[in-house]
Amino acid sequence: MRVGKKHYKTVWFSKGTVYLIDQHKLPFKFKIVRSRTYQATAKAIKDMVVRGAGAIGVTAGFGLVQAVYACPLYLKRAALLSRVKKAKQTIDSTRPTARNLFYATERVWEAVKANAQSVLMARRASEREALSIAKEDEEAGKTIGMIGEKLIHQNMGIMTHCNAGWLAFSDWGTALAPLYVAKRKGKKFFVFCNETRPRSQGANLTAWELGNEAIPHAVVADTSAGSLMQQKRIQMIIVGADRIAANGDVANKIGTYQVAVLAKENNIPFYVAAPLATFDKHIKSGRQIPIEKRSGNELFNRKWFKALQKSKVENFAFDITPARYIKGIITERGIIRANRHAIQKNLS
Amino acid sequence: MRVGKKHYKTVWFSKGTVYLIDQHKLPFKFKIVRSRTYQATAKAIKDMVVRGAGAIGVTAGFGLVQAVYACPLYLKRAALLSRVKKAKQTIDSTRPTARNLFYATERVWEAVKANAQSVLMARRASEREALSIAKEDEEAGKTIGMIGEKLIHQNMGIMTHCNAGWLAFSDWGTALAPLYVAKRKGKKFFVFCNETRPRSQGANLTAWELGNEAIPHAVVADTSAGSLMQQKRIQMIIVGADRIAANGDVANKIGTYQVAVLAKENNIPFYVAAPLATFDKHIKSGRQIPIEKRSGNELFNRKWFKALQKSKVENFAFDITPARYIKGIITERGIIRANRHAIQKNLS
Repeated sequence: MRVGKKHYKTVWFSKGTVYLIDQHKLPFKFKIVRSRTYQATAKAIKDMVVRGAGAIGVTAGFGLVQAVYACPLYLKRAALLSRVKKAKQTIDSTRPTARNLFYATERVWEAVKANAQSVLMARRASEREALSIAKEDEEAGKTIGMIGEKLIHQNMGIMTHCNAGWLAFSDWGTALAPLYVAKRKGKKFFVFCNETRPRSQGANLTAWELGNEAIPHAVVADTSAGSLMQQKRIQMIIVGADRIAANGDVANKIGTYQVAVLAKENNIPFYVAAPLATFDKHIKSGRQIPIEKRSGNELFNRKWFKALQKSKVENFAFDITPARYIKGIITERGIIRANRHAIQKNLS
Repeated sequence: MRVGKKHYKTVWFSKGTVYLIDQHKLPFKFKIVRSRTYQATAKAIKDMVVRGAGAIGVTAGFGLVQAVYACPLYLKRAALLSRVKKAKQTIDSTRPTARNLFYATERVWEAVKANAQSVLMARRASEREALSIAKEDEEAGKTIGMIGEKLIHQNMGIMTHCNAGWLAFSDWGTALAPLYVAKRKGKKFFVFCNETRPRSQGANLTAWELGNEAIPHAVVADTSAGSLMQQKRIQMIIVGADRIAANGDVANKIGTYQVAVLAKENNIPFYVAAPLATFDKHIKSGRQIPIEKRSGNELFNRKWFKALQKSKVENFAFDITPARYIKGIITERGIIRANRHAIQKNLS
């Protein structure tokens, strides 16, 4: 999407190198990071230089291609597969929650397995597969944008949580894609971005994206979300997803669950936008989704910990929103109801 | 309450000077501020050197006494009243939401009016009244603690929002007072403090208070509140109040409303603790309570505003929790149900 007058993607691959927009530095600095090895790419995912379900998936796919690139051309099938498998384990262990990561590494791994007669063939096949994943991610975002746009009415107040914009995917994004399409169609609306502590992706990334696309918006503390709904300033909520269980339960950024509960209490439709790659048919319900806990350093600095040595910090990265709070899941195949039957029908 | 091995109050008055614990500096530095004029005291309230419903009230009362102190002894009734009235307006305009502020300035003002024959008499009467307010505030806190303590069971997980501890009052506090009493009785329980953006009083003040009293606790991002309830780690919620309408609607720190909605959804009792001074019988319902909006600088620094020039910030200081979400209001006269009838019976 737009950065100044140029068009960028969040992540791309060229001649064995993965290029990433450094999301640590936004909105203060726009910087591209080059990652030349799968180990460096795995570290970039773990350290959240790149974050967001789709962007993690696309990056992970490219990372696994780098592992194939790192293999000497003379390697035989067994040795090649052993090295790539090890790389896959390294990449898979970076972040536990987002489905898209495993979706991508599994697809690239299958491509390698099917073409392991020679390293060169495996390289070509894996790169083709990883590029397809990136392309599909981008196209899914654009389609989600076109489908979701129909939900946006003139002068609506729309709330979003965290960042499920183009920075969270290869391009377009999911929760923000309908806004980008609506803006291009000339619709007027106002967006409230929840700050989204601890990492403040709403304040730092979503606000930056919306500013670049000239969409009017305000950032609010996470504590204001309910009050804004109560004040009738929100007519729709759209968020992204990191993993969707077979029954429609959604794992997404910590704080999503409470926004969904507040939406229900205030009769505001709550939508999740996600590509089919985010669905995990092997997971029956949200209870089975592993929830990442991260360091308290994401919340407070050293000075705070020094002053409050008797205080603990608990820091969850995600939470689970039960399907009953979700009005619909906006996918590239249309808006799916959040229940087992509808999901099964659309995934097959 | 305890600071190291010494006992402190949040605010006290001696020989015309108001002494305040500087709440801007906590938990990093423990510093006492001296305020020698009513103007300086009003500024300390406005700038939130002192904050919290009760502490604001006590400080405001002392501030108005300072205005009487500033009057030359020869002043006649009309001139005296005119000066004190002006001072009252200055103090009343500092913060619009907390009932205790107006409660205190009205009481001191009445004492001045009834003793305006001479400046000396007005001085003595106003000081006596302001000291009574401080004493009543402290005693109400202690009684609330003893009444609320009965709700605390062994090994409970208790959530609180913002800071309604002793720093928010003259001593003891409201929401935290039951915890202090329970701790002294040897009960074991664990407290979750919501960070409470934008000003993080939960992280900075409540955590500091609980640490000083050796009560086990963890600080969490405001976005984690719902998830913790969903995980069944919270069995009770207690918060304070800045103003309570005649129908039981409660104005309190922004984010309280959403914690209350989440409590209802998860079948967790949600209590408000407040002295009778916080009730405002002239206000029929929460809709009539003025809600303070404050500068976006409370949320983000200059660097952020410079990087995101197209982004607005909306920053509410308080929200309204409708009475139907409240299990009971813990007051110095017992636990009152949050409805017009019960409140009327107990206030009269």
